Amino acid sequence: MSSTAAVTDTASGEPQNLTQKLIRSHLLEGEPRAGEEIALAIDQTLTQDATGTMVMLELEAMGLDRVRTELSAQYVDHNLLQTDEKNPEDHLFLQSGARRFGLWFSRAGNGVSHPVHQAHFGRPGATMVGSDSHTCAAGALGMLAVGVGGLEVAMAMAGEPLYVTMPEVWGVELTGDLPPWTSAKDVVLEMLRRHGVTGGSRRVIEYHGDGVRTLSAMDRHVIANMGAELGATTSVFPADDEVRRFLAERGREDQFVQWEADEQADYDVTEHIDLSALEPLIAAPSSPGNVTPVHEVAGEEVDQVVVGSSANPGLRDFAVVAEILRGRQIDPRVSLDINPSSREIYADMARGGWLLDLISAGGRIHQSGCMGCIGMGQAPAVGRNSLRTMPRNFPGRSGTDEDSVWLCSPETAAASALTGRITDPRTLEEERGLSCPVPRMPEAPTVDRQMLVAPLPAEEARDVELVKGSNISALPEFDPLPEDLDVPVLLKVGDDVSTDEIMPAGSRVLPYRSNIPKISEFVYIQVDPTYPDRAVAADGGHAILGGVNYGQGSSREHAVIAPRHLGLRVVMARSFARIHWQNLANFGVLALECDEDVYATMAQGDRLRLRGLHEALRAGSEVPAAIVSGDGDSEGERQITLRHRLSPRQVEMVLVGGRIAQRAAAEA
Amino acid sequence: MSSTAAVTDTASGEPQNLTQKLIRSHLLEGEPRAGEEIALAIDQTLTQDATGTMVMLELEAMGLDRVRTELSAQYVDHNLLQTDEKNPEDHLFLQSGARRFGLWFSRAGNGVSHPVHQAHFGRPGATMVGSDSHTCAAGALGMLAVGVGGLEVAMAMAGEPLYVTMPEVWGVELTGDLPPWTSAKDVVLEMLRRHGVTGGSRRVIEYHGDGVRTLSAMDRHVIANMGAELGATTSVFPADDEVRRFLAERGREDQFVQWEADEQADYDVTEHIDLSALEPLIAAPSSPGNVTPVHEVAGEEVDQVVVGSSANPGLRDFAVVAEILRGRQIDPRVSLDINPSSREIYADMARGGWLLDLISAGGRIHQSGCMGCIGMGQAPAVGRNSLRTMPRNFPGRSGTDEDSVWLCSPETAAASALTGRITDPRTLEEERGLSCPVPRMPEAPTVDRQMLVAPLPAEEARDVELVKGSNISALPEFDPLPEDLDVPVLLKVGDDVSTDEIMPAGSRVLPYRSNIPKISEFVYIQVDPTYPDRAVAADGGHAILGGVNYGQGSSREHAVIAPRHLGLRVVMARSFARIHWQNLANFGVLALECDEDVYATMAQGDRLRLRGLHEALRAGSEVPAAIVSGDGDSEGERQITLRHRLSPRQVEMVLVGGRIAQRAAAEA
Repeated sequence: MSSTAAVTDTASGEPQNLTQKLIRSHLLEGEPRAGEEIALAIDQTLTQDATGTMVMLELEAMGLDRVRTELSAQYVDHNLLQTDEKNPEDHLFLQSGARRFGLWFSRAGNGVSHPVHQAHFGRPGATMVGSDSHTCAAGALGMLAVGVGGLEVAMAMAGEPLYVTMPEVWGVELTGDLPPWTSAKDVVLEMLRRHGVTGGSRRVIEYHGDGVRTLSAMDRHVIANMGAELGATTSVFPADDEVRRFLAERGREDQFVQWEADEQADYDVTEHIDLSALEPLIAAPSSPGNVTPVHEVAGEEVDQVVVGSSANPGLRDFAVVAEILRGRQIDPRVSLDINPSSREIYADMARGGWLLDLISAGGRIHQSGCMGCIGMGQAPAVGRNSLRTMPRNFPGRSGTDEDSVWLCSPETAAASALTGRITDPRTLEEERGLSCPVPRMPEAPTVDRQMLVAPLPAEEARDVELVKGSNISALPEFDPLPEDLDVPVLLKVGDDVSTDEIMPAGSRVLPYRSNIPKISEFVYIQVDPTYPDRAVAADGGHAILGGVNYGQGSSREHAVIAPRHLGLRVVMARSFARIHWQNLANFGVLALECDEDVYATMAQGDRLRLRGLHEALRAGSEVPAAIVSGDGDSEGERQITLRHRLSPRQVEMVLVGGRIAQRAAAEA
Repeated sequence: MSSTAAVTDTASGEPQNLTQKLIRSHLLEGEPRAGEEIALAIDQTLTQDATGTMVMLELEAMGLDRVRTELSAQYVDHNLLQTDEKNPEDHLFLQSGARRFGLWFSRAGNGVSHPVHQAHFGRPGATMVGSDSHTCAAGALGMLAVGVGGLEVAMAMAGEPLYVTMPEVWGVELTGDLPPWTSAKDVVLEMLRRHGVTGGSRRVIEYHGDGVRTLSAMDRHVIANMGAELGATTSVFPADDEVRRFLAERGREDQFVQWEADEQADYDVTEHIDLSALEPLIAAPSSPGNVTPVHEVAGEEVDQVVVGSSANPGLRDFAVVAEILRGRQIDPRVSLDINPSSREIYADMARGGWLLDLISAGGRIHQSGCMGCIGMGQAPAVGRNSLRTMPRNFPGRSGTDEDSVWLCSPETAAASALTGRITDPRTLEEERGLSCPVPRMPEAPTVDRQMLVAPLPAEEARDVELVKGSNISALPEFDPLPEDLDVPVLLKVGDDVSTDEIMPAGSRVLPYRSNIPKISEFVYIQVDPTYPDRAVAADGGHAILGGVNYGQGSSREHAVIAPRHLGLRVVMARSFARIHWQNLANFGVLALECDEDVYATMAQGDRLRLRGLHEALRAGSEVPAAIVSGDGDSEGERQITLRHRLSPRQVEMVLVGGRIAQRAAAEA
């Protein structure tokens, strides 16, 4: 059991890469050819607190009794600052939800979801979806792990498959050894230097080759994690002896199964990185894709250095910083912020003396969690350089609008904290007589599940009541799509409207993430502040008319749920962005495409009439409709034709009011 | 030098208490009889970041070259969360101000001002003012330390005396030893139980007696600190062998001077506490004065326990919690938040293994600083009990409006974290077989000044430029009071108007604490939102008319500076609250009392005319004035008489535009 040979698909007989093996072993529908839609069975789910409250509300709304995955885990790592009651009340709600639905619950202070999941729950060969874009980090253990929207995760919890477009497999061969003063972060920065932030789009990045063996399981986590920054669907590493060692150290060797690509396996795209040729790299403000060698920007003044996050979570990453700073002091201008990535790593930092090194060097040690990585504190001053071992430096993500954030390895971070300037760590050798530390890891790392609360037995769980604070309200129920609709077109917008315009984020709006009635007051307010009130006034539902690429940008589901709550039934647009289109269908809003001339001749205030809708949607892609001019013109109805792209499965889903309603009906 | 006998005033020959000795040794003007105004020389100052930015702007405005105290220290301990650029930019500004004006600078992460000051700078026999209400904690070392407004601190930095009303001296004799499971917090809670939150008003609390010897210097800090909650001017403890030991441990024995009350010294008020009769006490929501024995409220569910702050800052206080929790787990519902009070104590917690105990028990360990004590994070859920070893539990101070915060000792906090319910720690003995731990303190505590940046030499300091972020603007200049005034009465308000109504606080307004033009937009907005705009429009100045007790409540200077910036020259009122009246004078606003009939017959929109003002103010308390009705009534002027209560010194101060202008003139 503990050392099963690599799974091979004997049906095809062809040598397979690891990605193909992982997909074939979970394939429920479709053919795994790049570009085709497939359905995959999902073994595990991961949710964090910022997205998890909505997932719990979705589980409640669909009447799920208990999760049907092998394992689902709810983490609290994002909203730890607690500047008012909203965060602690979210934590209580999530804990009650985990008890009710049979999830593991990782308490506030236990650490960042991805490294904790890897330590306690990740297993080779499993599939996972998570409502966090860095879910892909689990690829470090030979898992196929994909970050998706909240409802997709809720559906996986309910036992539904994940529908995805089969990606290309991008084989990246690693050879050689990393030189001193470089580490895993420099590997993924090299990928970003070569390919930028969209290079991995519609691809799974599969690392293989002799160089993989030189990287620890947590080093691989660093690289797999930031595959998200390349835009990849996910990244995978083989489950080899190092993965076995990692699991064995945590008493989980029985969960080890060897998973590797077959020799001679093919890849859709190929790449080679000679690790021994790498040098310290850094991503300049304000994109993870702006990568340059550290020595080319060395000398710039630094005000802040932050070490932590899922992009450098391992004990080694903190220990190497501690050993570089041991017996030394950071520059008096620098704030050195240390975010231990988990409670276990925090304990090992204390046990190994590294924590004392960091405190003594002048570090500010923060609680275990994401902290500044998602803008929860640690904001820098305007225009002052902040170096971070984190995955992202998009403008303003730090909490400061005009920030200047750089991304680098722990070695570069430590060297720069010491000198107060961006510093190639290799220069410490000559200028300060330091040799590159190789921290000695503990033989038995801390393994402590005390803050991981196990799922309740099913019979006990059924009696648990959800604990909803004043800011948490149940997901509204969405009724079925009527046979006939006669609704006003309340808003006409132009091309490329983003979900940021539909549902703004930011500190004024985000606190209401678990309160759909409240957050709905902010829909479209930057475009037309009268829209929410007019939508409520138009009691029997309404339509919106958009241009090309409607709903681009962030995948946020609130951009559908909130306007749907306000009565939105139909969006007509010249074309839709993919994820938003999927979200509209999931929440029972009818997305209809229109031609340019229909768009041009329709006005805000017109009425849209749809008759015999159910039959029309089932019959094919064309949907006959009528427009009545809103300016009192007595010409009567003008006939038009709209189109839908829903599959038969999706038609039925929209007709009953969306995926939750469909699911609830199935449960009943 | 290191062991000078107690200073005795040989002039009077009478035995003196310690307070009298401290005052007489610093007396510049007046007679130290309770109720009389005296002027004291000030040796040291303490400022923190929340109030320090305004103090730096005041130093700049008065053109001070360098502080004239023996020592001034600027701490960064309040605003550590950094949710946007304002906090880090304040830190940069304060660091540049400390360099410019010759202050010590304690960097973010170095810890809470009061324990750090005690460890590094406090010395027996010194006087200190600080722009923080818990400045009084320094009484633990035999100092006379008083919390005051920012401008008073700025003036002390400029070498000016502190003017105060001579308080009564309240002698509290301590006898006996504290029983197991009780500690210093229970002593000051006993004081609060007996006397409530105003019991110390206009008094210095002087602790004496054999029981004092059983308390460490940091235990005394706990008690002196929360003298603020009794409303006392300050608290003092003798500088005895324990103080010598405390200083010697930190390499400062040369700064020890014995300061004690003479035997047979008298007190204005006397009190006795038998320490051996104390039991664990707790202050119930929502006042430090709601004190009750823990066993009377035992059993109530607890959601959060927070350990830290200047009210329990010593290593022992953390160590005792760690030893109670050693090898155990907190209740799974409790969030245990630990705020190490200084970087040195954090290091000693790591060295002594206590930190590992706390991490392993499930604690969330936060950076060193005030944190939740001043509502910077750690807010609890609505109505859920939070137990804190902090000094205050006023409603909403935690960040949650409807909070339920209790104040208790570290022992009670640890016991309650363990059980998830309010727990008398004595019951642990019987119910869990624990005996009361007596943590063994390190023989040599960590002494580390690396994050205390020393003042620059004067010649270097002169060239330092203040670093002002976008949210920091210079204090506006305030011009002298004209000889004649003819100004509209822009606002008429009723009795008991508080400074909260004049200058609201809260998260919308407070971020602009260093930006007078911006914060001025919020003056009186809850009373009359048109006031700021009308004030700006009334270009040549204006007056406000108030009722009885005008300006009660918080001492905030912004309630004068901001309306003064909008053009306020005169406040007429039936009577004034003491501190606000002082602040008006300090910033050059003329405060004039009027009779009831004058108040009744004057209306918003009338004009106030004052002629020959300088001579009138110098001549005596009566100020002749004229009122012109604002309703277009052509009767002309109506003559009235107003009164001022300014001393001759204050008249001159107001005439030149306030204390800063006066000081700047003296410097020039």
